[in-house]
Amino acid sequence: MGKRFICLDIGASKILGAVMNEDNEILCRVKKKTSPELGRESVDRKIIKTVHELMSACGMGIKDLKAIGAGAPGIIDTKHAMVRYAPNLPWQNHALGRMMEEEFQAPFVVGNDVNLGVLGEWKFGVARGCANVVGLFVGTGIGGGIIIDGKLFIGSGYAGAEIGHMIINTDGPLCKCGQTGCLEAHASKVAITRELKAGLAGNTPTVLKDVLSEGSGIIKSSDLKKAIRQGDPLAISTFRRAVYYLSVGIGNLINLFNPEMVILGGGVVEALEKEVLELVSENIGRFAWPAMLSQTQIKASQLKDDAVLYGARALISEILGY
Amino acid sequence: MGKRFICLDIGASKILGAVMNEDNEILCRVKKKTSPELGRESVDRKIIKTVHELMSACGMGIKDLKAIGAGAPGIIDTKHAMVRYAPNLPWQNHALGRMMEEEFQAPFVVGNDVNLGVLGEWKFGVARGCANVVGLFVGTGIGGGIIIDGKLFIGSGYAGAEIGHMIINTDGPLCKCGQTGCLEAHASKVAITRELKAGLAGNTPTVLKDVLSEGSGIIKSSDLKKAIRQGDPLAISTFRRAVYYLSVGIGNLINLFNPEMVILGGGVVEALEKEVLELVSENIGRFAWPAMLSQTQIKASQLKDDAVLYGARALISEILGY
Repeated sequence: MGKRFICLDIGASKILGAVMNEDNEILCRVKKKTSPELGRESVDRKIIKTVHELMSACGMGIKDLKAIGAGAPGIIDTKHAMVRYAPNLPWQNHALGRMMEEEFQAPFVVGNDVNLGVLGEWKFGVARGCANVVGLFVGTGIGGGIIIDGKLFIGSGYAGAEIGHMIINTDGPLCKCGQTGCLEAHASKVAITRELKAGLAGNTPTVLKDVLSEGSGIIKSSDLKKAIRQGDPLAISTFRRAVYYLSVGIGNLINLFNPEMVILGGGVVEALEKEVLELVSENIGRFAWPAMLSQTQIKASQLKDDAVLYGARALISEILGY
Repeated sequence: MGKRFICLDIGASKILGAVMNEDNEILCRVKKKTSPELGRESVDRKIIKTVHELMSACGMGIKDLKAIGAGAPGIIDTKHAMVRYAPNLPWQNHALGRMMEEEFQAPFVVGNDVNLGVLGEWKFGVARGCANVVGLFVGTGIGGGIIIDGKLFIGSGYAGAEIGHMIINTDGPLCKCGQTGCLEAHASKVAITRELKAGLAGNTPTVLKDVLSEGSGIIKSSDLKKAIRQGDPLAISTFRRAVYYLSVGIGNLINLFNPEMVILGGGVVEALEKEVLELVSENIGRFAWPAMLSQTQIKASQLKDDAVLYGARALISEILGY
C-alpha cells in the first residue's frame, strides 16, 4: 500500500473526512455531526474517531499514514497548528495539532476552512496555474480566501481575508459582527432571508411564504433556487439585489488584488450557479476597472463540497512539502 | 568615490530626483516641473536632464552610477520597465527603461509611485521590520500600496492596490473613476473640496469662503489646516466626516490584510497628522475587528516627500539585489 493522506473538513455542523492516495484520489469518506453543544472533549473525540474510522474503512495502519490535514472555522494559527478562536466551536487556544500528533504519530496541519477551500481550488480545482486568486464562498455568511503569488495569504496574525466583513455600504444594514454595511450583511443567506422576510411582512405575495414562516431559520439554498426557477418575483428581486452587492464586493477585490481569477462558491452559488455568474457578469463592469477586469476570470468553484478537503491536502503539501 | 544610486519621483506636476550613496544617504537633489502638456518627448527630455543635472551636481560620471530607480503614476509594468498607462502623463506603453538604459548605460527599474512610497517606508522608514503593511496616501486622490510577506504586492497585471477606489458606500457620491462611493470620493481633497463648496453654497459661514471661491481648484492642505486650527466649524465638520470615511477604508484593509502596520501619508496627513491620527483612532474600533486591530499599529509616514525616492531605492534592491 502506498502512503495515505487523511483530510478533514471540521465545520460547526458536520465533520467531513476523506482518505487520499498519493495521486490525490479520494479512497473513502466519513461524515459525522459535530454537535458542538456537547463541548470541547466531545468534538475532539469525534474528530479522532473520524480518523480511526477512515483508517479502518481503508484498511490502513498508522504506518500507512503520511500526514493529516484539516480545515476548521475561525482564527487558526497554522504555524503552531492551534485553533486560536472559533466562534461556532467550543475551542479557544486549542492545541489541535498536539492532540492529533499524539494520537496518530503523524504530522498534522490545520488552516482556516474557507481559506483552504480557495487553496484547494488553486492546487486541484478551477484555479490551477493562477498566481493570484480571490475566492468568495456565499452561504449563511460570506467567507473567502486569497492566494498571492502562488501562496495562501493569511496575514500577520492568521486572521486575514475577512472578505465577508468588508464594508461596502456604510449606511447599510447591521451585520452580526457589529459593523453596518458589510458584504455579508448584503449578500449572504442571512441577508437574503432578512430581505425576504421584510417583503413578506410587507405582504408581497411569494411562494416562499410557508418556508419563511417556519421558525426563524435561514432560508435553504434549495428553497431559494426553487422559488427563483418558478419565477417568484420576491425571490428574484431579493436575489438580484444580493448579487448586485456581491458584485460590489467582487469589484473591490479585483481592484485591490488584480487577480487572474475570482472563484465563487458556497451553497447559494452551487444552487444557482448559472444565475449568479450571469448577474455578476452583468454588474461587474460598474465596479471593477476595465484594466483589471480584462485580466480576471470569474468562475464557479469546481470542487464544491470537497474544496476544503482538497485544501487540507494542499496545505500538507505547502507546509510539509509532500 | 563609492557607487551612486539615482532615484526619481516622476509626478504629473513635478519630477524629484536625488543621488544616494551606498549608505542610502541623499547627497544632492534636483526638482523640475513636469509640464505634461508639452508632450511625451518633452517629459522624457526632462527626466533625462534631471539625471544629468544630478550627476554633475554630485561630480559623478557614468562609471559611478550603479542603477537608476523611479516611481511614476499609473499602471507600471515593473518586469519590463514600461509605463503601460499613466492617466496624467502623455505615456502609453512607453518603454521608459529602454530609453534610460540607452542613455545612462546603467540598470533602470520603475514602479508605481504610491506603491513605492509604501515600499520606501517599509525598507527605510516607519514600517521597517514589518512583514505585512498597508499604506494610504491622502492627497488630491487616495493612493496606496501593500507589502505582503516582505514583498511589494502588485497583482497579476501590475495594477493591484487601487485602495482609493474601494467602494465603501454604494450609495455615495460619484467618483472621477465612474464608480459611486469610492473611498477617494469620500476622503480625498477632491471630496473635502466638494463638501466644503456644498457647505458654502448652503451659506454656512466659513473662513474658507475666499479660498473656495477662487476658481474651481482643489483646496490646499495648508488652507484646510489653517481653517481647522482656527476652529472653523465647516472645515472641522467636513474634515471629521472625511476621516470617518477614511477609517471605514482603513478598517476594511485591516480586516482583509491583517497587517502589522497601516501607514498614513500624503498632503492631508502631513498637514494635519495629529488630528488625522486622533480621529482615526476614535473611529477605527467600529470598522476593524478587535482580533486584527490589536495586532495593527496605525502610524504617519516618516519619509514624507521622500517616500517615493526611498521606495525607488528599495525597488533597485528588490529587483537587482543591491
